Amino acid sequence: MKLQVIKIGGEVIDDAQMLHRFLEDFSALKNPKILVHGGGKVASNLSKQLGLTPNFVNGRRITQSADLEVVVMAYAGKLNKSLVSKLQKIGCNAIGISGADGDSVRTAKRVQSPVDYGLVGDITKVNGQLINQLIKANLTPVFCAITHDGNGQLLNTNADTMAAAIASTMNMFFETELVYCFEKQGVLSDIKQPDSVIQEISQKKYTALLKDKQIYEGMLPKLENCFKALKNGVKSVKIGSYKMLTEDTNNHTKLVL
Amino acid sequence: MKLQVIKIGGEVIDDAQMLHRFLEDFSALKNPKILVHGGGKVASNLSKQLGLTPNFVNGRRITQSADLEVVVMAYAGKLNKSLVSKLQKIGCNAIGISGADGDSVRTAKRVQSPVDYGLVGDITKVNGQLINQLIKANLTPVFCAITHDGNGQLLNTNADTMAAAIASTMNMFFETELVYCFEKQGVLSDIKQPDSVIQEISQKKYTALLKDKQIYEGMLPKLENCFKALKNGVKSVKIGSYKMLTEDTNNHTKLVL
Repeated sequence: MKLQVIKIGGEVIDDAQMLHRFLEDFSALKNPKILVHGGGKVASNLSKQLGLTPNFVNGRRITQSADLEVVVMAYAGKLNKSLVSKLQKIGCNAIGISGADGDSVRTAKRVQSPVDYGLVGDITKVNGQLINQLIKANLTPVFCAITHDGNGQLLNTNADTMAAAIASTMNMFFETELVYCFEKQGVLSDIKQPDSVIQEISQKKYTALLKDKQIYEGMLPKLENCFKALKNGVKSVKIGSYKMLTEDTNNHTKLVL
Repeated sequence: MKLQVIKIGGEVIDDAQMLHRFLEDFSALKNPKILVHGGGKVASNLSKQLGLTPNFVNGRRITQSADLEVVVMAYAGKLNKSLVSKLQKIGCNAIGISGADGDSVRTAKRVQSPVDYGLVGDITKVNGQLINQLIKANLTPVFCAITHDGNGQLLNTNADTMAAAIASTMNMFFETELVYCFEKQGVLSDIKQPDSVIQEISQKKYTALLKDKQIYEGMLPKLENCFKALKNGVKSVKIGSYKMLTEDTNNHTKLVL
């Protein structure tokens, strides 16, 4: 059977209309499905309200103890429960969980050298059995990107990576597709041209694009996750618009090995 | 088979040592079990930090939209995930959920007359099938007292009532015991005397105690919930110390019809 692991983030979460459209489409999918959500602006807004100053090294956020509390409240609390109640309303039996729940996604605190990013976790194990049990109970898991180390510590985790790791593991039970939905049509060859979607990126083409610096830097970790998932046996990986679940066009980016 | 539905709140949540002792004992319970947690000070502290002014009518809190966000972040986020990660550490396969998750506890917004308490929900349905499926998957549900109305609205709910309603419903599948754990030894006949525990309260005795105003007012809704659960077929209802799960004494309050 087919399983879709779908990740949303950024503007799709912050824009009420985009989110509504996406959730309607997601809810209508007939096959088993999993939603993984990133943060949007909820956490940074809450940080500001609480007077916390974000701390960056080399452009990457450092998660200190107070920051972790904020992301747990924002992602596992506000955002996750809001998504679940909206999905329940439109007939999708969602269950919102973090990686700590049911020990579903375990991580290890990122090594402290060269930079200590703080309470950030890299995935060590996805509990496919547990996730499969939830799906068999006709539930739709909705993951926030908060995980735990099995030793009582919650950790902040990259939502793109989490989606890829879950898709890779669920391969054991399903023919798995990984879909990244965002506000653009796909990976663009020119960030200023919304219609410059690269329809297909192979590993070879990726290397060439990298060499020519033709890919927007922020897209690189997402693409790395995509290729990793394909190598782990995920059948299909796509990046595209929040509308792509129901718009039957090829106007998105397909990744191939 | 026996199932224990155990509720903690107040100081047991706020005091790290009490909480640790309780969670160790809870984790060691051999039978299937469910934890329901109240709030402690987390929500009111967060409210203060965010500059919100609590609004009371007749001594009861009014939950406005901003207040609801705070309790969702504090209970479903911070507190729930902290409890789950602590339980995971000590070998209890906890899954932390709200009433919205899996449509497990549905409520209706409290009627607006005579006082509009705001976004507060009264329980209309507990999804026993779903809770039973989680238990059969060897999971220990950990409920925060946030629910939903099935129409996309999250609602704040009384944790004592939620525990009683869950215990009453789980009766379908188990011989169910309802336990309220807090910082005192039980229901006291003299609030200033910690050892004045009333060992057994029958309905008859309750009426007499009420008449003589011998029960601390804050305890009344809890006791109403207890008798309701007993009438719904819950086999045993106890109120006592956070230590009572393993201390094999009778120094707590037992409720009987």
